[in-house]
Amino acid sequence: MKKMINSVESLLEESLNGFAKAHDDIIQLNHQPRFVTRKQKAKQGKVALVSGGGSGHEPLHTGLVGQGMLDAACPGQIFTSPTPDQMMAAAEAVDNGRGVLFIVKNYAGDVMNFEIAGEMLDCEHATVLVSDDVSLPKDHSTGRRGVAGTLIIEKIVGAAAEAGASLIECKILGDRVNESTASMGVALTSCTVPALGKPTFDIGDNEIEMGVGIHGERGREPMNLASAADIVEHLATAIDTELKPQAGQKVLLHVNGFGATPAMELYLVYDLAVKYWQQRGVEIERSLVGNYTTSLDMAGCSITLTLLDDELIQLWDAPVHTANLRWG
Amino acid sequence: MKKMINSVESLLEESLNGFAKAHDDIIQLNHQPRFVTRKQKAKQGKVALVSGGGSGHEPLHTGLVGQGMLDAACPGQIFTSPTPDQMMAAAEAVDNGRGVLFIVKNYAGDVMNFEIAGEMLDCEHATVLVSDDVSLPKDHSTGRRGVAGTLIIEKIVGAAAEAGASLIECKILGDRVNESTASMGVALTSCTVPALGKPTFDIGDNEIEMGVGIHGERGREPMNLASAADIVEHLATAIDTELKPQAGQKVLLHVNGFGATPAMELYLVYDLAVKYWQQRGVEIERSLVGNYTTSLDMAGCSITLTLLDDELIQLWDAPVHTANLRWG
Repeated sequence: MKKMINSVESLLEESLNGFAKAHDDIIQLNHQPRFVTRKQKAKQGKVALVSGGGSGHEPLHTGLVGQGMLDAACPGQIFTSPTPDQMMAAAEAVDNGRGVLFIVKNYAGDVMNFEIAGEMLDCEHATVLVSDDVSLPKDHSTGRRGVAGTLIIEKIVGAAAEAGASLIECKILGDRVNESTASMGVALTSCTVPALGKPTFDIGDNEIEMGVGIHGERGREPMNLASAADIVEHLATAIDTELKPQAGQKVLLHVNGFGATPAMELYLVYDLAVKYWQQRGVEIERSLVGNYTTSLDMAGCSITLTLLDDELIQLWDAPVHTANLRWG
Repeated sequence: MKKMINSVESLLEESLNGFAKAHDDIIQLNHQPRFVTRKQKAKQGKVALVSGGGSGHEPLHTGLVGQGMLDAACPGQIFTSPTPDQMMAAAEAVDNGRGVLFIVKNYAGDVMNFEIAGEMLDCEHATVLVSDDVSLPKDHSTGRRGVAGTLIIEKIVGAAAEAGASLIECKILGDRVNESTASMGVALTSCTVPALGKPTFDIGDNEIEMGVGIHGERGREPMNLASAADIVEHLATAIDTELKPQAGQKVLLHVNGFGATPAMELYLVYDLAVKYWQQRGVEIERSLVGNYTTSLDMAGCSITLTLLDDELIQLWDAPVHTANLRWG
């Protein structure tokens, strides 16, 4: 295993310390328990958005804390859920009297721990469960996984909360965006989790893993390495079959790199995905290309599509000022 | 070779098409010859900044075209200089009557082609040659290479040009920032150039390449894989020896990922670099952490330090609105 670390044990702590120093104008790191909040607390009466999950997906979630997006994020160990005490402490730190919305990717550990935190929490709260990964069937026993669509939910609900939406409005909006969002990924290589010290899965030199999860979960099917056009056709068809956008439908298209894939390839994938939906009359109204929901050093990418309406476009466009997403 | 491409021949064109579509609010792509300009031309009387170089380093340079930074960028084939006709056409497209400043990384092909373009160009022009890589001695036969410090020069001179600086002022400022900037990189893996189809250099499972160039040029020395603390000590000492910042000196610290290294590791490196200079009383006044001057899918990073004064801080902080660098 080749990584720039000092020890597996200290990696997360040291990395968060660097993150906190690099962005001390935007965020603040709490050490025990571990969570990140905005440097400048949101105004009174704003619903507080709290997310979190295993580390190794940066900039998700810590890099998305800030004005217009999350109020707090709880980083767990790599690919490991944060603990309920992190979530509780984060929620209590950012609660503004209007309630707390948890945004949780659908993984057993995250779901359980956020539930426990919720039960112990005194303030009003609700949860949006993210389940945008269409590589699993909708009736899968543990439900679908939450992947790169999470950022879109956090951005859109973040804007609504900033504009004064109530807890129940934020919850309904988050669920609606989740229902309107579908993602699927492909891996060219496995990631290597430091504590394991070797690749999570074996993959042949001429193979790709179609439908891979962001923790290196095996996908729908191993496939032979194909052209980018074939790969995109495969991913886009799975998404299109799920969301069934009509001609004239406005969408947000997000091409997300898993960590080790160069920007050149991500933009090439984006070009092919644009063509796929333009041929169907779908209107690519907004887009985001880059490494946002990563899987350590995995090579590959995911495509995410969100069906938009005027309200969602306005919320997407609203100003955001975080360490790793910023506009307006 | 595992890459998401359709063919080696069409990779650059398809990737640029995707880039242009994803950022059509900020930039515009010209196809023959190939260059990227701002969507909205700068105001009359502003010095025009033109950069360029081989592709494979994205977001450098195309992702840095926009308000407050470059007026145009010329992407060559991967790791190959763009041609003089690209540079001439780009310069003519963005010349605003106040002259054109070329910002050129010090590589033989780039230097030669920008010189030829300059000779054929009718308008007033000057060149800033970037040579921030301290892994080579200052008296190296072809001079030092330009690496991640390029972005800092483009940002600072871009702000000055936007504020109305003259061509000669921009040239002097660019040279000054170059003199005040030092970088060094380390590779954990080689990159793979698509046209070559295999890694550029061999590297053992327990080796790292200290002082590597952004095209995968072999470094100062192969070293055994070391702790992040040792790696940072090595890089920072080379930079510190060059720039000799005194206690109290304000600096900009830039940790740049080469492409395949996770954000977690980059922030950890940043944390260690901050400690290195803080122990020496140096003040980390500004910072930038992320993949900015990449080397395709190489794992590793570089550290860059720029000595700051109040003028440079103000120029660094000035608003910038490009595809991949945005604030203010």
